[in-house]
Formats: sequence, C-alpha cells, structure tokens
Amino acid sequence: MPFFVAPLPAKEPGSTSRIDVSKRQATASEEALWRIFTVPEAPDSTLSKIEQNISQNLAGFLRESIVAVEKPLWQIERDFQDFQIPLAPQFVSDYADAMMEKLVAHSVHTASPSFIGHMTSALPYFVLPLSKMMVGLNQNLVKIETSKAFTPLERQVLGMMHHLVYQQEAGFYSKWMHSANHALGAFCSGGTIANISALWIARNRLLGPDGDFRGIAREGLFRAMKHYGYDGLAVLISERGHYSLGKATDVLGLGRDDLIAVKTDGNNKVDMAEMRRICAELQAKNIRVLAVIGVAGTTETGNIDPLHQLADLAQELQCCFHVDAAWGGATLLSEKYRHLLSGIERADSVTIDAHKQMYVPMGAGMVVFKDPSSAHAIEHHAEYILRKGSKDLGSQTLEGSRPGMAMLVHACLQVIGRDGYEILINRSLEKARYFAELIEAHNEFELISEPELCLLTYRYVPAEVQLALQKASPEQREKINELLNSLTKFIQKRQREQGKSFVSRTRLTPEQYQRQEMIVFRVVLANPLTTRDILHDILQEQTEIARQSRQVYPKLMQWVKELAA
Amino acid sequence: MPFFVAPLPAKEPGSTSRIDVSKRQATASEEALWRIFTVPEAPDSTLSKIEQNISQNLAGFLRESIVAVEKPLWQIERDFQDFQIPLAPQFVSDYADAMMEKLVAHSVHTASPSFIGHMTSALPYFVLPLSKMMVGLNQNLVKIETSKAFTPLERQVLGMMHHLVYQQEAGFYSKWMHSANHALGAFCSGGTIANISALWIARNRLLGPDGDFRGIAREGLFRAMKHYGYDGLAVLISERGHYSLGKATDVLGLGRDDLIAVKTDGNNKVDMAEMRRICAELQAKNIRVLAVIGVAGTTETGNIDPLHQLADLAQELQCCFHVDAAWGGATLLSEKYRHLLSGIERADSVTIDAHKQMYVPMGAGMVVFKDPSSAHAIEHHAEYILRKGSKDLGSQTLEGSRPGMAMLVHACLQVIGRDGYEILINRSLEKARYFAELIEAHNEFELISEPELCLLTYRYVPAEVQLALQKASPEQREKINELLNSLTKFIQKRQREQGKSFVSRTRLTPEQYQRQEMIVFRVVLANPLTTRDILHDILQEQTEIARQSRQVYPKLMQWVKELAA
Repeated sequence: MPFFVAPLPAKEPGSTSRIDVSKRQATASEEALWRIFTVPEAPDSTLSKIEQNISQNLAGFLRESIVAVEKPLWQIERDFQDFQIPLAPQFVSDYADAMMEKLVAHSVHTASPSFIGHMTSALPYFVLPLSKMMVGLNQNLVKIETSKAFTPLERQVLGMMHHLVYQQEAGFYSKWMHSANHALGAFCSGGTIANISALWIARNRLLGPDGDFRGIAREGLFRAMKHYGYDGLAVLISERGHYSLGKATDVLGLGRDDLIAVKTDGNNKVDMAEMRRICAELQAKNIRVLAVIGVAGTTETGNIDPLHQLADLAQELQCCFHVDAAWGGATLLSEKYRHLLSGIERADSVTIDAHKQMYVPMGAGMVVFKDPSSAHAIEHHAEYILRKGSKDLGSQTLEGSRPGMAMLVHACLQVIGRDGYEILINRSLEKARYFAELIEAHNEFELISEPELCLLTYRYVPAEVQLALQKASPEQREKINELLNSLTKFIQKRQREQGKSFVSRTRLTPEQYQRQEMIVFRVVLANPLTTRDILHDILQEQTEIARQSRQVYPKLMQWVKELAA
Repeated sequence: MPFFVAPLPAKEPGSTSRIDVSKRQATASEEALWRIFTVPEAPDSTLSKIEQNISQNLAGFLRESIVAVEKPLWQIERDFQDFQIPLAPQFVSDYADAMMEKLVAHSVHTASPSFIGHMTSALPYFVLPLSKMMVGLNQNLVKIETSKAFTPLERQVLGMMHHLVYQQEAGFYSKWMHSANHALGAFCSGGTIANISALWIARNRLLGPDGDFRGIAREGLFRAMKHYGYDGLAVLISERGHYSLGKATDVLGLGRDDLIAVKTDGNNKVDMAEMRRICAELQAKNIRVLAVIGVAGTTETGNIDPLHQLADLAQELQCCFHVDAAWGGATLLSEKYRHLLSGIERADSVTIDAHKQMYVPMGAGMVVFKDPSSAHAIEHHAEYILRKGSKDLGSQTLEGSRPGMAMLVHACLQVIGRDGYEILINRSLEKARYFAELIEAHNEFELISEPELCLLTYRYVPAEVQLALQKASPEQREKINELLNSLTKFIQKRQREQGKSFVSRTRLTPEQYQRQEMIVFRVVLANPLTTRDILHDILQEQTEIARQSRQVYPKLMQWVKELAA
C-alpha cells in the first residue's frame, strides 16, 4: 500500500471525480482522491455548467434558480437532517444537483432590485472571477509568510479608507501605511468585529500601564478598576445604536447595562443634552465614561448623530470617540453628500463595512484608527509568527487566520473609482428621497422616518384610518395603532412569502408619535438596479396585500365606522 | 439627469466595462456603471481568461503566475503606495493585468506540495466553482431573512461536527440541531474567534445571574467578581497553547497574565502534576479557575494533551473544559487515529478549523458545544432581527454579518466523505512518520519533536558538530547551540527566498535538551500532493544551503576543530 496519494493512470479522463467506495480498495480510492486535488472539473460537468451560467448571467441564474414562493423553514430543514458525516463520498455532479434543488432554490435573492429590505445589493460582475482567484490563491492574511503581497495590499486598502475618513497629508501615509507594528486600521469579517476591536483598544488605552500596574491587557479588568479607583465603566450610544455594541461591551467585560442607550430626538439622532446629563450623573457616581459612540447611519432609520457635538463631549470627558459607520461610511465616497458625516474625522476610530454600500461581497469589515499606534494597546506576538518588528497584520487584529478579502475592496476602489462611487451613492440617496415623496403623496401610506441617507421607514395606513385617527382619543389611537402594527407585520410577511419583493420591518418609538411603539417597513435603496417602477410596484403590492388580511383589515374598518358614528 | 442608473443601449456589447471618465458626463458614466452590474465579463476578456486558466489548471496557474524567487517586501510595497482612492475608474482588464503582475506574482504558493511549513494545503478543485456560487448568492448568515436554506445547512454542518466529537444519539440531533435559540456550535471566520466564543460562554456561565446579581453579561466583570467574592480568575493551558488564547483572555477582561502557561513534558504535552500544583496554589489565593484548556494538536509540535486527565481536573474544579483542536480536530475523521484525541468528547466546547486539515478554503472556523443551551449565556436580540424564538444564527454568535462559508465545509464532508478523509488523514500522519525516519537516518539532521499527528520539528546539525557536542562542556554546548540557531534561521530564510520549497521555523525549549532555547524547522505534512521525493529534496536543499552560510558554518567548524584538539 503506497504511503502517499500518488498519480495513477486515470481511467476516465475528464470525468467528475469520485472515490470508488464499492470496491473499498485503498488504491482505487487514493486514485479518486488524487483526482479531486489535481483534475479540474470537466467543462461539461454539472458543476462547470452551473458555474458558466453564473459567469454568463448571474442575474438570470439567481432569478431562475431561486424559487419565488417561499417554502416554510421546517420543510427546508428536512433536507438538512443527517447528523452523521456520510461514509461514502458523493459525485461532485450529484452534490451540485442536490444543492441546486435544496440550497440554492431556497436561498434569498439578495441581489434582486425588488428586495429592498436588506443592506446587501447587486454585486458588480468582476468580483465573481476575482473571488475565485482569491479562493484559489488561498492566502492567510495573519502573517506575511502566508500572504506576502496581500499584506501590503490590505495595508493600502486600510490606508485609502483612513484617508477617506481622516484626509491626512501624503507624509503621514508614507510614514505609517506600511510601518511594522503600526496599523491605520484592521480588516475583519464584519462590522461587529470592527466595533469590538475599536472598543477593545479604547478600553486597553484607558486602563493602560500606570506605575506598578502593568495595564489591563496583562492584569485584567478587575485589578484595573481597583488600581484606577473607578466604580464602573460606561459606553454611551444612541438608542438607535447597533446591537453589536451590546455584544462588544459584554465580551469586553463591561456588561450590557454599561452600554447606555441615550434617547433620540425627532430625527433619530442622539439627544446631546440628555447624553450630557447622563455623563454628569455617571461622573457623580464615579463611573468612568470609556467611550461615546456616534452612529453614522443607524441600522433602523439611517440617521447620523451630531458627530461634532459628540467629538466635543469626548474631548471634554477625555474618552474615546468611536463612530459606527458600518453602513453609512460609504457616503464619504460622495463629494456631494460626505458633509452629512462631518465630524467623523475627529473620531479615534471608525467602522466601515465594504460589504454594505461599497458593493463588495459579504465578509469585508474594517475599522480605521486615527492614531497609527492605537493598536499597540492590543498587540500580541508569538514565537513562530507575529514576531516583533514584523509587518504581520495578525499582531494587531482580533481575528487570526483570515482570507484575502481586502483584494475585493481594492478591486472595487480601483474599478469603480471615486467617480463611480459618487454616482452610486448619490443615486441611492436621491432614490430614497424619490421613494419618500412617493409615500408621502400616496394616500394610504405614511412616512415614519425621512431618508437622510438611502434608508427610510414607513407604514401602511388606509386613508379612512388616517382620517379616523384625527378624531380618536389617546386610548382609541393606541388600539388603532396596535391593529396597524399587526397589519404591517402581516403585509411584510406575506410580501416576503410571495417572493416578488422584500421590505424588512422593525419596531420604533418615534418622538413625533408620542413614543408609541410602532412597527414599520424599512427599506434600504442601495441597489443600483432598483428602478422607479419597482418602487411603485412595491407600494401597489402592499396595498393589495393589506386588503387580504382577514384578521386585521376588517377590524380597522370597524373602528373607522365607530369613530365616524 | 435620470434619478437611477438605468439600462441604456450598450455601445460595445461584450466589451469590458468601463466608466467613461474622459467625458465626465453623468449619463455616460451611468451607462458604464450599469454595465458592470449587469453585463458579465466577456469570455475573451483578460479577467475571464485568467479565470478559465484557474478553472482548467489551478496548479499550473499558481506555478506559472507566482514568481519563484522572493522579491523583498519593501519592493512589493512600492506597488501599494497610493493612499488616495483613485478618482477615475479603471478598466477591469487593466486592473486584472496589474494585479497579476503586482499581487498574484508575489503571493505565496500555499498549495504547493513542497511548501510544507504552513497549515494550508492544496484544495480540491470543486471548491472553486462552489466558492463562486457562494459569492454570487451573497447570503448573510446572521439571520434567516438573508440566508434562508443556508441557515439549516450551517446548522447541519455544526450538527455533523458535533456528532464527530460527541457522538450523541439520533434523538439528540433531531431535538437540537434545528432548534430555535439553541446551538450545537458556532461557525466563524477562524479558530481565534472560536476560542474567544468558547471562553466567553465559559466566563458568562461561571459568573451568571445569582440572587440580586443579574449576571456578568448584564453587570460586567468588576461587579461579578465582587458578587462572587473571587480575587481573580485564571485559565490554564500548556505552554504550547496557541497565542489566540492570550488574545481571548485579554479581550474578555481577564488579562494575559491570567492565562497560565503550564510547562510541558518531554513530549510537549502539558505536565498534569504541575497543572494540579498551580490549581491548588490558585485556590489558596482565592483565584477561581475559569477553564482548563486542552490542546489537541499544538501549533508548534502537533502534540495532544492528556485530554482525559484534563477532563478529570475540570470536573474536580467544576470549571469549563475547552479543547483547542483548531488544527488537530480533523484527525477525528480518521477511524484509525481518532483514538489519539480520546477524551475530547468530555470537553464543554471544542474548536475545529475546517480551513486547516479539512481542505476547505480560508475562513471556516467552528466551535462545537456539548450542551445545546451553552450559548444562552451570550444570547442577544435586536428589534429588526434575531427576534426571540427565531432560528437566526446571529443571536448566538460573536460575529454579526458573515458569508455562507459553511457551504464549502458541507461540500467537502459530502464529496470527500468519511472514507476520503480516512485516507487523507492517515496518509498525512504516515507521511510525517516517514519524514521523521528520513531525518533520523540522515547524519546531518536531528529530529526535535516526533510527529504525533502530521507535524514535526527538526534541525540541521552537521555530523561533525553532533560528535563535537558530546565532548562539549555545558558552556560550550550553549555557544554551539547559539550558532546552530543562527544556522537554522539562515537556512529557513534562504530556502524561502529561493522559492522552491518552504518550511517554517519556531523556537522551542525541549525538555530533553535541558530546556535550552532552540530554533527548529517546523513542517506540517497535510498536503496530499507532497511526495517522498519532495521530502528528500527538501533535506538535500537544506544541507546545500547550510554550507553557503559564510557567517555561521565556518564558526561551527572552528568549534569542531577546537573541541577535537
């Protein structure tokens, strides 16, 4: 029996590889194994044909492969019940066929121009072959030894994003961009890891070495608190802040209650007076503010906090100022609208996801640091990699082994360019404004939050109900609102199930509605292929669905009658 | 000016997309933008040709595209100096050409059978088209709304990996695998996040709600310590433990000093007597042991800790028992060798990276949990997603938005199957044993650590030096050892630069060498395409390089003479 899988003459050249299990002879199996590692998929194999279809017509592939009408999850789960890794290998072609039917058919058409409820969008075609190149190269960005040119490339991407935010001089970048043991940012899988990284650094800088105390990184939070004499730590953010910040405080040892959600004003921006009041209260209780976080593009309403005012406050408190621009950060690519994020350049760190409005596939998060030595606070080394003085990226990141996703961001920045992004971003914002006008002009819809970027919320309220609401008492209004909430839920769910279009929903407590709990439709208009017609159709479909609600719609009409009487 | 990027007649059908910047007319640019989102790369475009080359002959593509002789990093960096995002878009074909020359040519040939210093290996061909499908579908696994069938698929992969480790009955999996608010594990970008997730859960379970105390997740570590009355927390691991655990303790608020590195025995396995002694010491100091960690396949020597003994200790201490099998976990796929990891089934959580020995591309980490309700300790919800009772994966993971990498693990498990992995794993281990024999038989090499799995370390020691060492005094031995360390470094670096083959190096303090600090070559023999001949050639090349060292080799020979005199 040979020691290694070695090249034996192939019996069926070009055929899809299979490990021959019927015979269970080591040699036969080894031959088949050798083949899957050395013989490419034949051009006429099932998988190759699927791939050609994707290459030649991704939109068509998605449209035709994904079934429109939703199958209930429990039915889909029936195809994923086996808990034992199969003993016998499977033909690649059989596997591909099975996955087309079981997986692809029941995945979500995130690229569809009528699916406007997600932050995902259509992707530019060129990212597909580049992704394959990335996988084929299989670099590991944790260290230069396994990534070489990918390391300078990633550093350049971080430098470009840093410049987009902070706009430092050329000398700054020539000094720091490729400097060992410095980092203009960290590339990671997504905004959550980016936010955690930023707060990890903030925490470790605040509670750093001091006299006998060797710093929180070495001694831990408990001893740090005793050394510094604080009774608690706090992070402040608007009530619209992303849930990942709660995870961040938990994982960092602060506790979710130490993330203080400050109420927002009528525009879903953090109420600065309230934030200042809370800060004073915390200080009186000897609780140290670790960071104030500005949200630049809230997930639910798309609004941007007053970043300059937050920067002022952070300066006064001598705490970290972090901006979560995971979604809205791409707006900086628009000369026309980047002023909306004015003040972001004063942040110590900024989170931006390229897989949101930068049209890069999933898995491309980033955080940039104003100060290139920020990440010293979390630096780590090991014997076999990340040696001191090396340029290994892994010595200053939360993640270890990671793929070369930065290449796809690099590609989009070069191929789309500032000019291209200018158009994409501007059109998105203008499309949202158009949709807002459409909703306001429609007598059966109500705009709940205006689009500051390309995200807005609204709900369906039949014209008769709108009239009736004017006459209703506060109690009646509450009852009607509950019914409207049920109706919104019903419409959103049914629309999703019908599979033609998709809007998402969330729960808000808008100031202009006396902070009544309200379920609303939420749309993100980032997909460049979404047209005006599609927006019209989506509203049309929603009015039709509303009337199909046998539970809620009649009850609403009942109220209208009663209030009219 | 139109509001949206809209379909205009294409002027050059099939040509590579470009945003026309020469004219800088909004309409012309919009047309070009529309095209990159709607018109596939033409089959005869540069990028398509590169892609076809990858599809038809990945090994050849890598061999021909990556230059063999290493270019210094500072030279590579010159191609990644621009810090401004370019204004003008670039032709896809121009970009592709530039990247072939600047990026691909200077990336690392991780798949090469003669690059045996990494944990990356050759990949099976079928993962390439599947990766492209994954990117094209662009699902986001954080929630069902953006992943649908990918969620049950990922749960199945975690179920299969859970079964591989814990081998529960069918009823267990039918009850828990697809249960809302339960998780048999968490899929993530890599082993670091997996280890952090495991310890995060352990920390939150140990310091959970208790009477008035609402638990560490809500109130934070500082109040938790005061409530429970501990003076400190500690995590114990062998000195061979992965550096990610230091990051984990830091990020979780414990401090790197609270990760206690316990010395290992002559086989690089943790010394249990020493661990027990330390635990007793900690208890006497009122320091609570949060977790003991077993390493199943150390990164530097590939050894496995005595898992049953660690499980016993954890049971006595009533603490978490976590196993970091990021690299070695794949050995469970071998019926022949899985006994080497015996005791792993007693762990509360186990980390396994599919992108290491499971032949999946970079970015596929996992942690499995013995108890399906473990992750309740880190559960989180939000209004618009991860609602309570949903099956959204994101409510129990550290990461938020993530790609559908689980699909590639699923594919490998089905297409390679247990039978295929049995061969792959067994051959790897046997190849390492063969290489160890080769080294031991060679009169110029010294095996430093025996391969327990497919990893071993060794160094180059000329025959004359081996003889001389026997006569040397401890001081002389130390001097010679220093020279040998320099020589190992020199050989490793030069071999890498020559680009024909690659071994890595690390620093050990082997017990059998009186814990003298020693630099060694480290090899991982996971690539199925690595042959005996390649192993012979690598040793041959190393002996040749050694003699080229003008600094060290003559000095060594000098010692030999002096000692002989």
